[in-house]
Amino acid sequence: MAQHNVSVEDTLKVLVENKKYSTVKDVLITMNPSDIASIFDELPEDQLPIMFRLLPKALAADTFVEMEPDNQEILIRGFSDTELKQVLDELYIDDAADIVEEMPANVVSRILRHVTPDRRREINEILQFPENSAGSIMTTEYVSLSADMTVSDAFQKIRDTGVDKETIYTCYVLSRFNRILGLVSAKDLMLAKDQSVTVETLMTTNVITVSTLMDQEEVAKQLSKYNFLALPVVDRDNRMVGIITFDDAMDVMEEEATEDITIMSAQTPYEKSYLRTSPWELFKHRVPWLMLLMISATFTGLIITSFENSLAQLVILTAFIPMLMDTGGNSGSQSSVTVIRAISLGELEVKDLGKVLLKEFSTALMCGLALGAVCFGKVMLIDGLLFGNLAEATTYSFPLVALVVSLTMSLTIVMAKLIGCTMPLVAKKLGFDPAVMASPFITTIVDALSLLVYLKIATAVLF
Amino acid sequence: MAQHNVSVEDTLKVLVENKKYSTVKDVLITMNPSDIASIFDELPEDQLPIMFRLLPKALAADTFVEMEPDNQEILIRGFSDTELKQVLDELYIDDAADIVEEMPANVVSRILRHVTPDRRREINEILQFPENSAGSIMTTEYVSLSADMTVSDAFQKIRDTGVDKETIYTCYVLSRFNRILGLVSAKDLMLAKDQSVTVETLMTTNVITVSTLMDQEEVAKQLSKYNFLALPVVDRDNRMVGIITFDDAMDVMEEEATEDITIMSAQTPYEKSYLRTSPWELFKHRVPWLMLLMISATFTGLIITSFENSLAQLVILTAFIPMLMDTGGNSGSQSSVTVIRAISLGELEVKDLGKVLLKEFSTALMCGLALGAVCFGKVMLIDGLLFGNLAEATTYSFPLVALVVSLTMSLTIVMAKLIGCTMPLVAKKLGFDPAVMASPFITTIVDALSLLVYLKIATAVLF
Repeated sequence: MAQHNVSVEDTLKVLVENKKYSTVKDVLITMNPSDIASIFDELPEDQLPIMFRLLPKALAADTFVEMEPDNQEILIRGFSDTELKQVLDELYIDDAADIVEEMPANVVSRILRHVTPDRRREINEILQFPENSAGSIMTTEYVSLSADMTVSDAFQKIRDTGVDKETIYTCYVLSRFNRILGLVSAKDLMLAKDQSVTVETLMTTNVITVSTLMDQEEVAKQLSKYNFLALPVVDRDNRMVGIITFDDAMDVMEEEATEDITIMSAQTPYEKSYLRTSPWELFKHRVPWLMLLMISATFTGLIITSFENSLAQLVILTAFIPMLMDTGGNSGSQSSVTVIRAISLGELEVKDLGKVLLKEFSTALMCGLALGAVCFGKVMLIDGLLFGNLAEATTYSFPLVALVVSLTMSLTIVMAKLIGCTMPLVAKKLGFDPAVMASPFITTIVDALSLLVYLKIATAVLF
Repeated sequence: MAQHNVSVEDTLKVLVENKKYSTVKDVLITMNPSDIASIFDELPEDQLPIMFRLLPKALAADTFVEMEPDNQEILIRGFSDTELKQVLDELYIDDAADIVEEMPANVVSRILRHVTPDRRREINEILQFPENSAGSIMTTEYVSLSADMTVSDAFQKIRDTGVDKETIYTCYVLSRFNRILGLVSAKDLMLAKDQSVTVETLMTTNVITVSTLMDQEEVAKQLSKYNFLALPVVDRDNRMVGIITFDDAMDVMEEEATEDITIMSAQTPYEKSYLRTSPWELFKHRVPWLMLLMISATFTGLIITSFENSLAQLVILTAFIPMLMDTGGNSGSQSSVTVIRAISLGELEVKDLGKVLLKEFSTALMCGLALGAVCFGKVMLIDGLLFGNLAEATTYSFPLVALVVSLTMSLTIVMAKLIGCTMPLVAKKLGFDPAVMASPFITTIVDALSLLVYLKIATAVLF
């Protein structure tokens, strides 16, 4: 695929340089909107409108939707009123609403001036819902049927109205008051042996709906759980207002996983792709967390200074601080990240804390014992050899140091795993995003605790 | 939704206790297979077969597919030959292959004995493909048409064969040698004004295909990029062998994101859900990485011991080690995790390394300067106050210590971000999974480097 695209791009480049626009057009119309959009997104600003105008109306609109917002803006600013109207008329309402959301105010007012009053109302309806809610990503274009229609009536209605609908494969049977009575799939209609039976006899009445205010992540989860092509969205009064289709759910799933991963690495999430995010924007998303975590490290500093005498007498103790801190951090993040992901996937609830603690405690015991044992061996053999002269220079027995280090290792792992698995569930309980409780925060907490344990044990055993 | 499920579960529990099985059945048949499966997965082993037998044939098969493998095994072992055959006949081929893959050998041979020779051949065909390849997740049940069929012929064929197909919404037009000539959607067929035109005149000839050996992650990415309901899979000779549908792609996307997140937190990925993974399994997936990273920390120990004299003279230097190490780790993981995700989403290629380095270097400079400045202030004000007596006890000037610490802070951040953004791309280039180069590994590398820089600067400036 990738190789294939590259060669088309190169061909197009040569054709454009030679101004063979009619050939360019012939090539473009064989292509898929997403692929055309990727090529257009790489074009210099002055070539973009020329190339875009080569596309036939419907393909132009489909390509437009797939392009990056900054390029959409360039195009809209260059469009004549007629061109703008043509593109807007071809868009699905949810895509039009997305575009309106991304554009600056003057572009938005120009867009809203050039759509029909009906579409303007529908766009505004979608825009009124909170960001990331089902209402904000739904489309109001779906096929509705009434219960007393026959299969052939239904086909006729689909034929008359279907061309503008985002999907015709799930049709909703509505009451006079727009309440959902049931659904029929196009498959049910097509496989019906008798064209004169009513929709009512074919429809499924067990319809899963989502509310306009449901979080988009939850909607995507429902859609993926039931393998549905689309989910109907209902308002507070249980009236159908729109649908969310599988392709929107896929985008949401990808977006939400990216958001989780971004938060887990101590950054506030941003919407643009990496290559389109400027260093200044990256800086703004990263620096607050780095500051916060840096300042939290004051505690570890305090702990170390309060043991200054012991550390000055036995510098070899300092040599093991990074290993203990890192292993603690890694153990904690294994547990926290696993729990965060399980919460995101809907596998874990706050009420499962007991089960989680038990599982993590058992795992931590095994990890703690294994690492403690290996750590003792490693300190005695590798570090004993490497730091040999240092050990000799002190009056303390090296095996005793190894014992202190490996004992701290085991305890740190157990603490780290228990804290790591608890914090995300606590965050969830308190209404925060569990993803915040990933490696960076857990590490900061575990660092302080492991240092405290280490230096307490060391001073107790060695001095 | 969740609340709704809970109450149904409770109702069912009471009904089962009172042996009101016919009511249980009436309740179950109003429900969705996924929801029934979640309830069945929580049943005690002895109740499961009783409840399962209440379901009508088609619903039973759909529910079976959604259940956990260990419960599927319990059911299969309890099935009579007739029951087994009934369930197997209702399954789609890709689901049957998935189940065969999960079961122990004796169950597999029993399954294969009870399917028709045709289905056995198809299952074996899917099983021969490598794990996570397009071939291993495809289904061989799709609607194929020939180019000279009219729209009404096509409808007839769909009506005759469609009931067993995973989707009838995308139909593939094949040559006599099973090569893809084009595709028509059910929408095209339903909206066709004239039933006597041929499929050839309606079909799209620009068909995106994937090969049997393509990685499932890549397939899911293609499907999501083009918003397709299904993608056709072709073999080495370009003959169509199956399709992959959007619902499989959604599962793959979720699975792959989970896998990335698991690897990024230093664990080998596992397939079962968290609550179904035993502590012993968790231990096996976690301990090798903890060991490896613990042993790698030997380097940081070595660096510290080689500066033993300086550290013994000026213990306050030790107090800042955790803060420097943690900030380095956090900065590095911000960059590495962002790059890893962008690679996963297909936004970044190895060839973009230059762009990435430039962006991260600019961001790192800003972060480095900001944190360096704040760090100087924090050390002077907060730490100066907290560690005051320690500073006074030494002969070195406290502002000079603060300068050394904040200078190291700035340098560490720049190093960490450059290493963090480079390593995932290097891993990708070398054919490793970029996700390995997340926080844990980056932290280990950055720790050693930042310690080295810190102690070098400290000894140069302070002694």
